Amino acid sequence: MRTEDNWLLPEGIDEVFPEEAERLEQLRRKIIDLFASWGYRLVMPPLIEFIESLLTGSGNDLDLQTFKIIDQISGRLMGIRADMTPQVARIDARNLGRDAPTRLCYIGTVLRTQSDHLEKSRSPLQVGAELYGHAGNASDLEVIRLMLEMLAIAGIQSVHLDLGHVGIYRELARQAGLDARQEAELFEILQRKDYPELAAQLRALTVSNSAAEMLKALIDLNGHEGVIEEARRRLAAANEPVHSALADLESIASGLSRLFPALRINFDLAELRGYHYKTGVVFAAFVPGYGREIARGGRYDEIGRIFGRARPATGFSADLKVLARLGSRPDDSLAGTRIFAPAVDDPDLHEKVRDLRSAGKTVIQELAGQIGGAREMACSHCLRKQGVNWEIFPVGD
Amino acid sequence: MRTEDNWLLPEGIDEVFPEEAERLEQLRRKIIDLFASWGYRLVMPPLIEFIESLLTGSGNDLDLQTFKIIDQISGRLMGIRADMTPQVARIDARNLGRDAPTRLCYIGTVLRTQSDHLEKSRSPLQVGAELYGHAGNASDLEVIRLMLEMLAIAGIQSVHLDLGHVGIYRELARQAGLDARQEAELFEILQRKDYPELAAQLRALTVSNSAAEMLKALIDLNGHEGVIEEARRRLAAANEPVHSALADLESIASGLSRLFPALRINFDLAELRGYHYKTGVVFAAFVPGYGREIARGGRYDEIGRIFGRARPATGFSADLKVLARLGSRPDDSLAGTRIFAPAVDDPDLHEKVRDLRSAGKTVIQELAGQIGGAREMACSHCLRKQGVNWEIFPVGD
Repeated sequence: MRTEDNWLLPEGIDEVFPEEAERLEQLRRKIIDLFASWGYRLVMPPLIEFIESLLTGSGNDLDLQTFKIIDQISGRLMGIRADMTPQVARIDARNLGRDAPTRLCYIGTVLRTQSDHLEKSRSPLQVGAELYGHAGNASDLEVIRLMLEMLAIAGIQSVHLDLGHVGIYRELARQAGLDARQEAELFEILQRKDYPELAAQLRALTVSNSAAEMLKALIDLNGHEGVIEEARRRLAAANEPVHSALADLESIASGLSRLFPALRINFDLAELRGYHYKTGVVFAAFVPGYGREIARGGRYDEIGRIFGRARPATGFSADLKVLARLGSRPDDSLAGTRIFAPAVDDPDLHEKVRDLRSAGKTVIQELAGQIGGAREMACSHCLRKQGVNWEIFPVGD
Repeated sequence: MRTEDNWLLPEGIDEVFPEEAERLEQLRRKIIDLFASWGYRLVMPPLIEFIESLLTGSGNDLDLQTFKIIDQISGRLMGIRADMTPQVARIDARNLGRDAPTRLCYIGTVLRTQSDHLEKSRSPLQVGAELYGHAGNASDLEVIRLMLEMLAIAGIQSVHLDLGHVGIYRELARQAGLDARQEAELFEILQRKDYPELAAQLRALTVSNSAAEMLKALIDLNGHEGVIEEARRRLAAANEPVHSALADLESIASGLSRLFPALRINFDLAELRGYHYKTGVVFAAFVPGYGREIARGGRYDEIGRIFGRARPATGFSADLKVLARLGSRPDDSLAGTRIFAPAVDDPDLHEKVRDLRSAGKTVIQELAGQIGGAREMACSHCLRKQGVNWEIFPVGD
């Protein structure tokens, strides 16, 4: 074992040093307090679980992303959480049996076997909020608003929002008579927005002209105001659920525009984030200069079913580390003034130090014989005896 | 897969529901703020690392306790941290190269393959503080004081402190001419305080009478004041490092007695917690009715050597979940008053809700068509329009 290799960390795994750690701690507190003020209560799902409960409802993507370990007590396979959303859904479904809406929030590290191509991290500090037990637009609107407030609190500006609805593609695929495998194949092509391949595949599947035209139209239905109107025209032959989904998108966008007049909203009917378990509206927030979404979410009404209780659900999540990196730096530091106390065994000094610390000041106690003084300990002030009292002086006076 | 099994968690792995989660969050903040006020800066070590750097300096005990996973990117073996102390030592040694004392603190989940016999948890929320770069009693005294302040802030009363010193046994074993294997064997017997077996083993090893008597004496050297004096008598033939260790214990105990006059201090020269990597004073805090220590620590001067930089080090750690469970319940709740806002689309109501939330109040927004009202949402108050203004009324008025 070479000594110089011992400190190398695995790819996408990071350690956080004081300045950044303290920023993360401050932002964590602000966001949890924001969530609390909206009635979202904190839960702490376990870091590891048996693989069956961890992956339930989350589809194959999460399976490949999940580190597996053997439980030496039960001999069963466990996984390290790669996403906390299904865990929180289970907590709602199994443990907090209520019919009225339930609001929960969470923060914690998740681990992934692979980093995606844009974001190098394999250990995001996932923070999110979920609203269970309400199926209407009001709950989607609430979680999107809360997500935007979270970004504002993090000091992230020039946010724009992508809005889509996985129900539109699902219903069009059903209407075209596709089976589950065909639907999934077509979904991959749609994600790549590969128009020629989509057209070829639709011909190969002998999908009717009318249904094929509507599926192809999804690639074009992308942009600002006007997209919903265009969608109504080009998807005129679609079944009622498609038109109901378009109405949902329109209603949510108009609610948001009134609350956040400066928000840029982009509709994208072919962008189906979390398609494998999402069921309704999907959304994501972007900022200029950062190539991927900084927060995302959507509706996933079926996730609790496997735990014995399907509940409507909508929510969002983000990586606190990304929010801290992209957000504006706060002016105030957590540490504030650092005061150096000399290594003198005087009860008056002990009392003064205790009082200062209780008042939230940082006091560094000199250790007998230590290397370095106030300056080396990054202190701006020091305690010195003035007559009978210990007083604070700037270092260097 | 049976539905009813999906929610079962592995033994010793827990999920935390809102009331307890919010208590943990509040206690976490208080403790990190306390540490900050003493100059201990927060770091966040990674949840997983390559196994070589994770286990370095920590001995075999930690290896068996560490879950192993394969890094699919590098093909190398990684471990999930079972203890954050060696990680923080590495951060000090490798990344914060300073000669002056460095104070660091941390909080995070650690995972263990087995639960110990007394504490069922395999996923403690480890919180701790470490002081690097000072070898004298002053730094041991500081970290023990900080540990006691942490317990006080958690509302834990009737704490008593165990004090020992691994250097005493180490030096006596050296003086008796034992090799490393013999020293380790004898250490196991000493931990069990098995006097007859200890005597038999010392005879088998043909240890001199004088050295054997001193090693046997360690089992008896256990109790309050007077133990150090008795130790000086019974270990009179020991080398200088033993007497220097006794002087250290005496000095630290006397420092603590002055600062915490009510603290019960118990010396135990045969109790060698963390013997495999500790090098000096070791300590632990207990409370009546809880069968194991609630916080513990000690000096481990050699841990940074393998990372290229041996620094004196002393610190402590605890499980935040245990502290929250044993501490007194705070009177104030995080949530405070919960106010119910009706599903009315009125800009004045939106503004009122925003103001209340900004002021730290919790406002639950009714969702159009939702199940349940203010009572079901656990709200004590609700917003109602009075003339032109939205006002807060107790529920039921």
